[in-house]
Amino acid sequence: MTAVTRSEHDLLGDRDVPADAYWGVHTLRATENFPITGTPISAYPHLIDALAAVKEAAALANEELGLLEPGKAAVIVEACREIREGKLHEQFVVDVIQGGAGTSTNMNANEVIANRALELLGHAKGEYAYLHPNEDVNLGQSTNDVYPTAVKIATVYAVRGLLEAMAVLEGAFAAKAVEFHDVLKMGRTQLQDAVPMTLGQEFSAYAVMVGEDRQRLDEAVQLIHEINLGATAIGTGLNAPAGYAESARRHLAGITGLPLVTAANLVEATQDCGAFVQMSGVLKRIAVKLSKSCNDLRLLSSGPRAGLGEINLPPVQAGSSIMPGKVNPVIPEVVNQVAFEVIGNDVTITMAAEAGQLQLNAFEPIILHSLSESLTHLRAACLTLAERCVEGITANTEALRASVENSIGLVTALNPHIGYTAATAIAKEALVTGRGVAELVLEKGLLPAETLTDLLRPEILAGSGPLPA
Amino acid sequence: MTAVTRSEHDLLGDRDVPADAYWGVHTLRATENFPITGTPISAYPHLIDALAAVKEAAALANEELGLLEPGKAAVIVEACREIREGKLHEQFVVDVIQGGAGTSTNMNANEVIANRALELLGHAKGEYAYLHPNEDVNLGQSTNDVYPTAVKIATVYAVRGLLEAMAVLEGAFAAKAVEFHDVLKMGRTQLQDAVPMTLGQEFSAYAVMVGEDRQRLDEAVQLIHEINLGATAIGTGLNAPAGYAESARRHLAGITGLPLVTAANLVEATQDCGAFVQMSGVLKRIAVKLSKSCNDLRLLSSGPRAGLGEINLPPVQAGSSIMPGKVNPVIPEVVNQVAFEVIGNDVTITMAAEAGQLQLNAFEPIILHSLSESLTHLRAACLTLAERCVEGITANTEALRASVENSIGLVTALNPHIGYTAATAIAKEALVTGRGVAELVLEKGLLPAETLTDLLRPEILAGSGPLPA
Amino acid sequence: MTAVTRSEHDLLGDRDVPADAYWGVHTLRATENFPITGTPISAYPHLIDALAAVKEAAALANEELGLLEPGKAAVIVEACREIREGKLHEQFVVDVIQGGAGTSTNMNANEVIANRALELLGHAKGEYAYLHPNEDVNLGQSTNDVYPTAVKIATVYAVRGLLEAMAVLEGAFAAKAVEFHDVLKMGRTQLQDAVPMTLGQEFSAYAVMVGEDRQRLDEAVQLIHEINLGATAIGTGLNAPAGYAESARRHLAGITGLPLVTAANLVEATQDCGAFVQMSGVLKRIAVKLSKSCNDLRLLSSGPRAGLGEINLPPVQAGSSIMPGKVNPVIPEVVNQVAFEVIGNDVTITMAAEAGQLQLNAFEPIILHSLSESLTHLRAACLTLAERCVEGITANTEALRASVENSIGLVTALNPHIGYTAATAIAKEALVTGRGVAELVLEKGLLPAETLTDLLRPEILAGSGPLPA
Amino acid sequence: MTAVTRSEHDLLGDRDVPADAYWGVHTLRATENFPITGTPISAYPHLIDALAAVKEAAALANEELGLLEPGKAAVIVEACREIREGKLHEQFVVDVIQGGAGTSTNMNANEVIANRALELLGHAKGEYAYLHPNEDVNLGQSTNDVYPTAVKIATVYAVRGLLEAMAVLEGAFAAKAVEFHDVLKMGRTQLQDAVPMTLGQEFSAYAVMVGEDRQRLDEAVQLIHEINLGATAIGTGLNAPAGYAESARRHLAGITGLPLVTAANLVEATQDCGAFVQMSGVLKRIAVKLSKSCNDLRLLSSGPRAGLGEINLPPVQAGSSIMPGKVNPVIPEVVNQVAFEVIGNDVTITMAAEAGQLQLNAFEPIILHSLSESLTHLRAACLTLAERCVEGITANTEALRASVENSIGLVTALNPHIGYTAATAIAKEALVTGRGVAELVLEKGLLPAETLTDLLRPEILAGSGPLPA
Repeated sequence: MTAVTRSEHDLLGDRDVPADAYWGVHTLRATENFPITGTPISAYPHLIDALAAVKEAAALANEELGLLEPGKAAVIVEACREIREGKLHEQFVVDVIQGGAGTSTNMNANEVIANRALELLGHAKGEYAYLHPNEDVNLGQSTNDVYPTAVKIATVYAVRGLLEAMAVLEGAFAAKAVEFHDVLKMGRTQLQDAVPMTLGQEFSAYAVMVGEDRQRLDEAVQLIHEINLGATAIGTGLNAPAGYAESARRHLAGITGLPLVTAANLVEATQDCGAFVQMSGVLKRIAVKLSKSCNDLRLLSSGPRAGLGEINLPPVQAGSSIMPGKVNPVIPEVVNQVAFEVIGNDVTITMAAEAGQLQLNAFEPIILHSLSESLTHLRAACLTLAERCVEGITANTEALRASVENSIGLVTALNPHIGYTAATAIAKEALVTGRGVAELVLEKGLLPAETLTDLLRPEILAGSGPLPA
Repeated sequence: MTAVTRSEHDLLGDRDVPADAYWGVHTLRATENFPITGTPISAYPHLIDALAAVKEAAALANEELGLLEPGKAAVIVEACREIREGKLHEQFVVDVIQGGAGTSTNMNANEVIANRALELLGHAKGEYAYLHPNEDVNLGQSTNDVYPTAVKIATVYAVRGLLEAMAVLEGAFAAKAVEFHDVLKMGRTQLQDAVPMTLGQEFSAYAVMVGEDRQRLDEAVQLIHEINLGATAIGTGLNAPAGYAESARRHLAGITGLPLVTAANLVEATQDCGAFVQMSGVLKRIAVKLSKSCNDLRLLSSGPRAGLGEINLPPVQAGSSIMPGKVNPVIPEVVNQVAFEVIGNDVTITMAAEAGQLQLNAFEPIILHSLSESLTHLRAACLTLAERCVEGITANTEALRASVENSIGLVTALNPHIGYTAATAIAKEALVTGRGVAELVLEKGLLPAETLTDLLRPEILAGSGPLPA
Repeated sequence: MTAVTRSEHDLLGDRDVPADAYWGVHTLRATENFPITGTPISAYPHLIDALAAVKEAAALANEELGLLEPGKAAVIVEACREIREGKLHEQFVVDVIQGGAGTSTNMNANEVIANRALELLGHAKGEYAYLHPNEDVNLGQSTNDVYPTAVKIATVYAVRGLLEAMAVLEGAFAAKAVEFHDVLKMGRTQLQDAVPMTLGQEFSAYAVMVGEDRQRLDEAVQLIHEINLGATAIGTGLNAPAGYAESARRHLAGITGLPLVTAANLVEATQDCGAFVQMSGVLKRIAVKLSKSCNDLRLLSSGPRAGLGEINLPPVQAGSSIMPGKVNPVIPEVVNQVAFEVIGNDVTITMAAEAGQLQLNAFEPIILHSLSESLTHLRAACLTLAERCVEGITANTEALRASVENSIGLVTALNPHIGYTAATAIAKEALVTGRGVAELVLEKGLLPAETLTDLLRPEILAGSGPLPA
Repeated sequence: MTAVTRSEHDLLGDRDVPADAYWGVHTLRATENFPITGTPISAYPHLIDALAAVKEAAALANEELGLLEPGKAAVIVEACREIREGKLHEQFVVDVIQGGAGTSTNMNANEVIANRALELLGHAKGEYAYLHPNEDVNLGQSTNDVYPTAVKIATVYAVRGLLEAMAVLEGAFAAKAVEFHDVLKMGRTQLQDAVPMTLGQEFSAYAVMVGEDRQRLDEAVQLIHEINLGATAIGTGLNAPAGYAESARRHLAGITGLPLVTAANLVEATQDCGAFVQMSGVLKRIAVKLSKSCNDLRLLSSGPRAGLGEINLPPVQAGSSIMPGKVNPVIPEVVNQVAFEVIGNDVTITMAAEAGQLQLNAFEPIILHSLSESLTHLRAACLTLAERCVEGITANTEALRASVENSIGLVTALNPHIGYTAATAIAKEALVTGRGVAELVLEKGLLPAETLTDLLRPEILAGSGPLPA
């Protein structure tokens, strides 16, 4: 009969851990110390993968430099690869919001890798005399270089997911821009009727907006490729031998396929959270624009009778438990809420970054959590918006055209021909009497009928020549 | 011929100050050290008045306790009264954003009061041997009790101004609620047509909202009446004799007419910024609701032809440099912007409060600045909104009634009589065919005509019996 | 052999749902529409309980008013009670962040309750002809009154949990205030040595701070007891008969044991999120103060040799994967991070509240999510801080006393006796020469030795008479 | 005797304006409509200059395209140049926070330029028949392209000022990095003693941080060079003839010397505030890092006796009105406050950007205000920090070295030689007994004395070879 627990030892004394757990005493204490969210780091698979990649790279570098026996290196590498294949993720049990600058996350990884490696060597879990979580798995490393490096790689992975989703959304908007290319409508400024445009131009703007944001995100993620592996505790590289930082970086770049670079000044890089703040700032920008677009979609589809009623969002569920037949713009609404969350997360990240002291920022766990949440929720929001809303939007073409013909804003187009003062008088009279602008201009003999017709041609008004780029 | 400068001395050495300046060497150095905003504290008259009140109260307490000669006390009190009458405000020259927890503001006050008091005694400015800024004017005090106390009194003054303005706005909304009592319209949820209501109910909600916010502000300002005068440097009351705190509080309450109380735990009170954070939180609440109301006003007045066009805001200026006749909702727009500012200020205040360390928060100057800005801008926004917008709003009554009669949302009222499932089918058909709900119900024989007419009576639909409270 | 699925019908057509699911077609669509966070509402047990309480109260009111047959009412009530006992929670599967103002949450509840009630009646799930999710369970209700009412009740439950935890934390600080009553130390302002105090006074301030925040939270939660049940869609009470609102409120108060009141103006109450904004503002205040206290604890325990080293936090885990023997202040650190999260959540809630339009705020789901997260994480943080940190703090009494005796700040106490100018000179000389203040005062004959000894007695300096309240 | 007023006319009727005012009726109404901050746009000289540059460029383009008579163009250009030379700035009187998307600012400019141009033509102010604010000065323009373009140019000007100031600060930190190159000290993580480093490394990190932030700002300002001049009302270019946008851009680039580009999609560009959000996000990053550095400076200089006392900030003013000899870190403190303000402004800008609707963002005035405040205050803060603080910092070299020799953190360096487990035991014993690490290692015979001496050489420990880059 096998033992139910094994005993492990640390600075504070002995503790029993479950015999079958790959994690050990450091992890055990951390789970007791941080009963905050109930969400373990295993819920962040990008982070677990990134941690395993860092540990694998470090083992290879240590072996290369003759610091770690090849036999040990081989099993550490093997354990890391298993984790990167999705195994053992459930062993990453510490709470995502934790004190200690990520030490508990790093120790959880060290312990799981060590125990799996011990098994591969034919030893029992906990027989650290043969392979030690700190002395072997963590060799040449510190939480203070491992954790930020892993967070950066996890962030790069998540950014890729968001970039893909944004491309889908951009495509959905662009397709509608083409589809609505000929649909004339009134443009509005400050919610007041302004001058004509096409619905295609309106959707083209959304497409361009998403496209520009993609570019900005792509630029921002470049900064995230700068790592501080080799810095060890505070950036001085204490206990990491010459050549280690470069070797570890090279292996890590190979494993992840990312063009990682080592920061020029490791002391600065170890205490710095600037790249996370800037990344979050760009996510906030994306959130702001997404939210604005969704506000517009909700407004343009308001109705069905007492609203603007310009476009129809595809119905995706019944809208009310009491009002029969009501359908609501639930997809844009959920995107708005994700945007508000991302904007709030940016404040959290900002405060956490500002609170760093001297050689380290102890608050990177909440940065990881908030950034990860923003990235994955934005990805889900973009895909949902594209697939469950934008792709199915239809236009109320006739009503839109009528609103242009009936509009007072047409007078703006006559401004250069009859002058701002005369145009103002026409506009005022149209508003008071309810009559049309063209009618009044003709009546007052301000322009010949032919000229007027010519000036009011839709394609002229909307300045819409070729298809939007 | 008189000297252009006089020499003063402090910890760092001698400096010349302008001979006619009431401020002295400490103020001089502060103006050089903090060239940040260019806005002197004289731009915050409530603060200057409050400082003078505190200094006067302290002098009276010191005299009462036999610590300050009556002759000195009399001229200090006289100088403070002059300041409270609006004199010498231009002598308060230090930048509002300053390091040092308000020491420069306090020393600016000590110096101005001392020099004015010296004049009243027949001495020249700078002859501190006869009456000293620190040893006499600041006697028994520290910046750390004087400044927070003055900021609290200044805040109370500013809150009063805001409460008045909110009452004006509440009144303006309430008057419209009465005026629009009979105007039937479609209510909307999620920008989709919902069920009928009256425009009076809509404006009544705005009035109630402002009224509730007034109550909340009134509650929050009570917390601001707790002061720490007598705490001196860190709350232990060092150098303030027994009875001083109570005497100073009594005099200060008398001077200001405010029901001030001394905090029970002065150590806590001296480091605490909680009341400011909570006050700012309530201002944020007010800003959120104001902004929401202004969003509504802009939406309801959208048009004139391609919008909701339910109400008309009074035109207050031409709306466009290019579009003749365009009028924009500029008053709600400016209120929205003030709201955004107040919400941003709340973050600033939050960060400043969080950054306090050990026995003091050194960042109260930015709290004073942000809180004061929020209060005065909100006051201006409320008055402007009431007087230049709400009071002049008119309703497009006929169009509103038509929108109800034409609405699909009427079917909700039939729900209890024909069932959710049948009602859903009617709604769907009305939407597709463009026909009316009543027409379809009759056609299908779901209800007798009389019952239908009865169920769709406006006052029933809107649940609007008597005038709104 | 039983069927794997059953077919259900809604506005959009037919869909198969798992035969054993208590939820139905509306819930199914919602799970497809909102794949955002992966966190179902079942993770918010307070919300599920509150929803069941609301539905139970509505059924009892409907029965009382003769609108619902007693037989149906009985099984609806029974189903709700089962849910409140913790059953069927796993059937609440819609994503917590959802479009539609909570409609999907409400419909999820309606469907689960209806299907469980059908079972109790001896019918199969989905046989809505016998008891209908909308026509019976949701009778007289709308998402727009049910969801906010449930969110408020859930919030009250969570606030109670936080209040309890804060009381534990207050007690822990207060116990240390008593324990450290005699421990003299230097007080600091702006991180510079100021004047003496006791460590007891320092901890007493933390206790008072938590105590005051508890009071503020207790006041804020009162506002949350105002509900809008009976408002139905927009506050006009359409489809809710006379007496319904009062009856439902009475039953709900009875079920929950809470002193609930119905809002005076239901139109306002239905669109209003002010109470949530204010609640979040108070949570932000609590977070700010907690964070400040934790910053202090980390600073005071800095060292062990190159820091302030005034107090020792109990070690709870090894602090470093590379630095042997290092122990870090991980508990205060995790509390700081929760505080940053709460402050970010406040911005999210603020934006969601501001985005409400006309008769409804569609964004309450993110408000529920953020508020709930803030409340539960703050509760965990307070308990963790009390039990894993504050209770085990010890003081380095001797070093603290030495720092007072060696301090220059002692000179402040002599200020009233030798004057600010002379005191400044002594302070300057002490700083430059490294000598003691008392020594210099005696040497210069500024005070007789006896007087000096008397003035520098600890209990005088710290103004600490009796035990802190 | 000359008239005191002249009469002007607009959409709303006639109004008298002061006869000597260059501004006219539109400006008059705006000053009445927006009594919010009391701060006129003249307080933003970069904006006034930018507006004049835009108007000049537009006049030249209009002349070039034959739309504006050369005679009129010449005087408009002349008036604009006068303004850019600093004349007439006091005529820009509308409140900086204003409704209307900047229309009032644009009209203020149109009126001032028209009236000055009229004077240059020999006409009286107000004789708009000869040259009209809208029909001539605003020809081919709309507020919606003029205002954002001017705000961008003003922002570029202000960014340049900040970049200069940051270079000064970077230089100041770098000089200290060189000066303190040999000063060994303990590095700290989580406020706990970690491993040795040099004070030069610490200051080098600050220099690198500022340098990186400068790079980020330089990248972000590139995005601000994209303008929408030629878009007119909503981006369709209505009333702007072919060739106008390019001609106006070319002239504007020439006038300002900036490499401006016209946005590819003018509809998108006209409604987009993304570049401002991103710019503000980068300013927030800068603020976060500056605040962190100032927190460090205040912490490192804490004392003089009961603090860390590692460095001395130059005293710039007496620190206390009650505590003689006290000197406070007032310069870092004021920088912290500016940082908090910038972070709050970012929230304001975010909300304003999110609130844009359809073809325009009406809230750019508050964006201009907040962005301008952030930029100018950060500039002042950087210069003040460099010149009044960093440049005068000195180190307490001896105490710093002693702290290293006395530290337990030394044991980390022995980790690779004696193992993590043995090292942990030594650390624990050192902590409990107060003895030194080296002493204990020798006593236990863990390492030969020579090896130990070698391992603990400062330059090895701090990893500090050559001078920091």
